Amino acid sequence: MAGTGTGLAGAVDAYLGDVRDRVVGTLLRDLPDLAPAGLAGLVSSYPSRPGKALRPALCLAACGVLGGDGDRALNSAVALELFHNAFLIHDDIQDESEQRRGGPTLHAQLGTAAAINVGNATNLVGLRRLMENRALLGSQVAWRIIQETELMMRHSIEGQAIELRWIADNACDLDVDDYYRMCLKKTSWYTCIYPCRVGALVARQGTGEPTGFDHYGWYLGAAFQIQDDLLNITGDYDAYGKEICGDLWEGKRTVMMIHLIRTLRGAERARLVAFLGRPRAGRDAAGVAWVRDRMVAAGSLDVARGYARQLAAAAAREAEDALGAAPPSPHREFLLALPAYMIERDR
Amino acid sequence: MAGTGTGLAGAVDAYLGDVRDRVVGTLLRDLPDLAPAGLAGLVSSYPSRPGKALRPALCLAACGVLGGDGDRALNSAVALELFHNAFLIHDDIQDESEQRRGGPTLHAQLGTAAAINVGNATNLVGLRRLMENRALLGSQVAWRIIQETELMMRHSIEGQAIELRWIADNACDLDVDDYYRMCLKKTSWYTCIYPCRVGALVARQGTGEPTGFDHYGWYLGAAFQIQDDLLNITGDYDAYGKEICGDLWEGKRTVMMIHLIRTLRGAERARLVAFLGRPRAGRDAAGVAWVRDRMVAAGSLDVARGYARQLAAAAAREAEDALGAAPPSPHREFLLALPAYMIERDR
Repeated sequence: MAGTGTGLAGAVDAYLGDVRDRVVGTLLRDLPDLAPAGLAGLVSSYPSRPGKALRPALCLAACGVLGGDGDRALNSAVALELFHNAFLIHDDIQDESEQRRGGPTLHAQLGTAAAINVGNATNLVGLRRLMENRALLGSQVAWRIIQETELMMRHSIEGQAIELRWIADNACDLDVDDYYRMCLKKTSWYTCIYPCRVGALVARQGTGEPTGFDHYGWYLGAAFQIQDDLLNITGDYDAYGKEICGDLWEGKRTVMMIHLIRTLRGAERARLVAFLGRPRAGRDAAGVAWVRDRMVAAGSLDVARGYARQLAAAAAREAEDALGAAPPSPHREFLLALPAYMIERDR
Repeated sequence: MAGTGTGLAGAVDAYLGDVRDRVVGTLLRDLPDLAPAGLAGLVSSYPSRPGKALRPALCLAACGVLGGDGDRALNSAVALELFHNAFLIHDDIQDESEQRRGGPTLHAQLGTAAAINVGNATNLVGLRRLMENRALLGSQVAWRIIQETELMMRHSIEGQAIELRWIADNACDLDVDDYYRMCLKKTSWYTCIYPCRVGALVARQGTGEPTGFDHYGWYLGAAFQIQDDLLNITGDYDAYGKEICGDLWEGKRTVMMIHLIRTLRGAERARLVAFLGRPRAGRDAAGVAWVRDRMVAAGSLDVARGYARQLAAAAAREAEDALGAAPPSPHREFLLALPAYMIERDR
């Protein structure tokens, strides 16, 4: 793969920043009036905070690298950024998270009832944008994008259900393949495969199957999720924007946790299983610190870093295969540089 | 309007029962496999409990009375019953309700995180059914029904937001017109106008505007909601299936509550405003009983019954205007008898 360094990371940051300005700017400018006055402002809360704009960037890059007109994909890019923000609002409630993108979560500000409703309103505004594709792209392509959206939502909901079930059942017999299956649904499809597929559908105007980025997106998404899980434990709050060790408070089955459960023996394993078997409110800071220290001692973080590197390398190989022959463009460079960027980011 | 009594109520019950068997039977039989095993079972939980099937009945009746083929509307009727169940799951979380259709609410059983996800999964299965309309009804009609669904969701989310805002702001200066505006969005559009519009779209195969039942649905929905609010205070748990006086625990701005706030004076008004200003957890059974007793003493329940009667009479007039010339059919009789039934029901 291409060498990595500040040069490439800077190029990725610049591409993401441009997309963010364009997509989030359009999203905020075009928000419909919603009753009561103030509801549209609540819908704009998460999008207004600093975010990576990774999903719309993948959509526009996949469209651009295939020779498509980015203006025709902008509407879909806005829609999927809205779906992402809706997902974050509901996910923060489900995870009982307190912080998001450097500020309090919406349910911490408004209460759960209003936050659920703002999440639903955000999904609704996304659906409206997808329906505008009919005039923009024609009935056939607009319908295909809605089909892709339905498929993405199905994978996301199933991935979320699998992860919640593991916590509810206090699953302690998982292996890394279980994690990958969950992660394909929860993260890769939603964060990488779906945006690329939508970009490809727009570029190809609905002809052919938009599957050329599927393997790339699968590896890239898994690398992204593992890096996110690592940052959750090792990150710096100011960069990461979420509470540190939140995943441990929640009992999430990350690759590090799965490694730790499989590694500990005897009384230490029993203590970990008991910690995970408690409801969130039954865990305390001392227990969380103990689990984090065990992860460091057991090498779980290094194991996870190794997985993330392997996955990023696999994504880079897929990108070379898929894009090696494409003419140079910022879109091509972004897609090629993204795998290394994913595992070097601190936010 | 036609006389009411066991005869007509029996006919309405029979029509609802037939629709329920057909629509809920189809809904449960066709549930897709969802990972993890068990998620589809959770999606089927609320639909499997005793419900009225009012919304699919309105959809099929509106289609039938216009000469449409009910088989072609069945898929949409299943979809809107799914959307309704998804709404109930999220609404029960928002209202912190404990009981639904005679059993514990889903979040009381599973926790909020899993219940939010099951609600989203239920919406997803509804969306899949709407997408099946493309093969069944053609692209044009299928798209129009999705547009109507988007509009319904917008009204519902806005109505919910308005109602939640009133509670959050401890609004004590509302009048009955404020209530009607909220109720048009939260209840009438979603429960009556949308189902009738979808049925009309199927019957007319997308030609013309499906607005013939709008006034009927508006009055009918408002009568339905006020009767529901009355049952919440005066009903019998075994028939009603939800905790009695739940609306008072939640501080809901029903017509009775709005009347009571406008009627009480001095220390009693101050006590009510203070009661409503507390979070739900800060209210107690003695306070709830005091509010209920004040409502009885102030005549708030009788005022609400009067509104419901007026609205039902208005709905019946609209039905006579719209359907007087239609040939006799079970669909016509159902739509004509429904207004009186709405305000006589005990569940």
